[in-house]
Amino acid sequence: MVSTLTRYKAEFECINDSCKTRYDLNEVVYECRKCGSLLQVSHDLNALKSISGEEWKNLFDSRFRSVKFPNSSGIWNKREWVLPHIEDKNIVTSGEGLSHLFSSDRLTEDLGLGSFYVKQCGISHTGSFKDLGMTVLLSQVKQMIASGVPIRAVACASSGDTSAALASYAAKAGIPAIIFLPAGKVSQAQLIQPVSNGAKVIALDTDFDGCMQIVKEVTREAGIYLANSMNSLRIEGQKTISVEITQQLEWKVPDWIVIPGGNLGNVSALGAGFEMMLSLGLIDKLPRIVLAQAEHANPLYLSYLKNFESFEPVVAKTTLASAIQIGNPVSIQKAIKTLQRFQGIVEQASESELADAASRADLFGLYNDPHTGVALAALEKLLKKGTISKGQSVVVISTAHGLKFTEFKLKFHGGEIPGADSKLINSIHRVEPKPGKVMDLIRNLLHLG
Amino acid sequence: MVSTLTRYKAEFECINDSCKTRYDLNEVVYECRKCGSLLQVSHDLNALKSISGEEWKNLFDSRFRSVKFPNSSGIWNKREWVLPHIEDKNIVTSGEGLSHLFSSDRLTEDLGLGSFYVKQCGISHTGSFKDLGMTVLLSQVKQMIASGVPIRAVACASSGDTSAALASYAAKAGIPAIIFLPAGKVSQAQLIQPVSNGAKVIALDTDFDGCMQIVKEVTREAGIYLANSMNSLRIEGQKTISVEITQQLEWKVPDWIVIPGGNLGNVSALGAGFEMMLSLGLIDKLPRIVLAQAEHANPLYLSYLKNFESFEPVVAKTTLASAIQIGNPVSIQKAIKTLQRFQGIVEQASESELADAASRADLFGLYNDPHTGVALAALEKLLKKGTISKGQSVVVISTAHGLKFTEFKLKFHGGEIPGADSKLINSIHRVEPKPGKVMDLIRNLLHLG
Repeated sequence: MVSTLTRYKAEFECINDSCKTRYDLNEVVYECRKCGSLLQVSHDLNALKSISGEEWKNLFDSRFRSVKFPNSSGIWNKREWVLPHIEDKNIVTSGEGLSHLFSSDRLTEDLGLGSFYVKQCGISHTGSFKDLGMTVLLSQVKQMIASGVPIRAVACASSGDTSAALASYAAKAGIPAIIFLPAGKVSQAQLIQPVSNGAKVIALDTDFDGCMQIVKEVTREAGIYLANSMNSLRIEGQKTISVEITQQLEWKVPDWIVIPGGNLGNVSALGAGFEMMLSLGLIDKLPRIVLAQAEHANPLYLSYLKNFESFEPVVAKTTLASAIQIGNPVSIQKAIKTLQRFQGIVEQASESELADAASRADLFGLYNDPHTGVALAALEKLLKKGTISKGQSVVVISTAHGLKFTEFKLKFHGGEIPGADSKLINSIHRVEPKPGKVMDLIRNLLHLG
Repeated sequence: MVSTLTRYKAEFECINDSCKTRYDLNEVVYECRKCGSLLQVSHDLNALKSISGEEWKNLFDSRFRSVKFPNSSGIWNKREWVLPHIEDKNIVTSGEGLSHLFSSDRLTEDLGLGSFYVKQCGISHTGSFKDLGMTVLLSQVKQMIASGVPIRAVACASSGDTSAALASYAAKAGIPAIIFLPAGKVSQAQLIQPVSNGAKVIALDTDFDGCMQIVKEVTREAGIYLANSMNSLRIEGQKTISVEITQQLEWKVPDWIVIPGGNLGNVSALGAGFEMMLSLGLIDKLPRIVLAQAEHANPLYLSYLKNFESFEPVVAKTTLASAIQIGNPVSIQKAIKTLQRFQGIVEQASESELADAASRADLFGLYNDPHTGVALAALEKLLKKGTISKGQSVVVISTAHGLKFTEFKLKFHGGEIPGADSKLINSIHRVEPKPGKVMDLIRNLLHLG
């Protein structure tokens, strides 16, 4: 396989159109050394065009069912589009990707849509979509170490999902991981994943931005490799989500994709996947994208209202959607580019709107985290406004498992979210353990008269 | 599809060899009306033998990870072996099954095994293997309702995973669910899943056994269907795990399967899947099975020491492995039969042994719940004793996601588990947010001198 893979090539490329400096993927570089812009991974599209769109679809379909390494990963079964130069022995995988595309006839009808799916990225190894990117980053690092680049550890600043994924994949690879967290600002559930996976967890008396500054300093030292999302390797894994969704829809492109956004790397990845499929002839149209923000952390929404003519960071307020509580997103430029290309829309959701939307969908068997709630609320609002029409096809990206957000669920059903719809609150009934009394209660609850 | 499926038939059958009374699957019956024994689902093996083992393997391979309903479910892609009579429109699925078979070269080497896999059943819709059985039970109930059986609700007694799975699949089906829990004895994380999915959650001032008694009473009333594991429909879903593991190993049977056990329905299901593959010519040998119990809830282990010549229930002590804290298992007879047939072994693990084993494996990128810890500890002990030989192939069944057991992880790394190996405890480092001080700490942690 490696022999045929060598015809494909990928490099880092500066995203600044007037610079476009290129760097080898084995170089330790996160921002352009000439102009300071972010980098992206650039693929040799001409080489990839050596087989047709139909042939790519057939190849990906033939691997989708594979039980064999590395095609048993939803990332590495598309390796030519990800990092074609990684050797099998350096692939670090825990079976990421291949998540279910949830659908419910009743929910689809309830929303009035033609078709409606939730892409369950949170049902994954560490419980969030971050696995999709970390398998790529750690595989590249393992390959760099194997080829003599002196890397001693990988490091990130994080308050949740990123640290869990980094620690787990680093443990799998046998490479030390260093995690920087703001002391006292991280829930124990978020803290204990990297601790369990043996990472060096360092709590700093500062906020997330302070941690980010320290990790940038520290990764300037030789030997500590930066794993935050400004490292564009992770995008290469995350972009496969577009291919996988389209493949699960038998290569039909949905009308809309709705995705929650904070630091905004994920929406650029989503766009990159669709662009690549269009360039290589697998699809002949692009979906429209809705980027959903929490009203408490809505800098992109505010910029959208001004047609993206200007962008101002905001100070993010506390939101239930904690993973997207970001006022100054790292990937803002990439995200605006993507939204302009995909006739994108930005919508926002208040705290009660996101909580209600998450809870409403739970009644159809889902178990939504608050970020998926933001996306679902945006969808409901756009349906109401008529922007998304009845009868259209929509896919919502669910980014994390509800099991990571027990507090959010407890707050909602405890009636602690101001403005939330009280009709959605479910309570616990208490009764004496006597059959007669229990049956009376049940008859009452089931309205059996 | 339905037309070719009608050639296959399944019925309830009494497990008592001298009774074997049969009942239609549409009957509301949980125990034999003649002799009171448990029931099992019995398939028409002669009809299933109308195609060869090779043909079954090819059929299952062609459906594996299909993107189309219902083959996008790991249960319904084997529907002829599960409940062949269920019509498509009554299938209630959330994409269960198809879980990753985790492997790590370093961990395999560390254990000294030839091959070693962890079947990640907890990376699933509600976070545990219970999804595998609930999709079957709810589909059968939906079909019964559609054919006029007057069922108004499904009900179970549970303190954890079962209630989460029942509530989620009932919500998907649009059928009311009633959950009985012992008041004050259930963690909030366990409580909030069925609450979120809209179940009628009833807390009773009694223990789990008291809840079980009430649910049995209540489901004698017409219209409330029992979903506890004494209902053998769930076994039909759970048994597909054997087929899926073997399929993921390219139809090679491992030497050993290690599975944690409390109420013991799951080990019978595991055995049933392998028996069916052997009968139908997909495999030509059976694996050996290790049933792993917590020392604090070890009635089967005690019986095993006496060659299963007698069985005495015990009063289970509190164990970290809370889901298997059961002293009087419902499926004891089925389990002993299975273990005798599979040259089975029962091993037990103390609290510190299970905690150490879970934590040791986490250092290779897993995130183990305490029940998986019990299985891993049993494996380590049997390797030490030489019962399992170096170089053999082993699959451990992981039954739930570690995300459901944050408390367990916190306790371990907080040093609160007596006798646990202190070398496995990982701590959090705190330092001033100054680059120099941080680098000093990192050099120290990475032993960079």
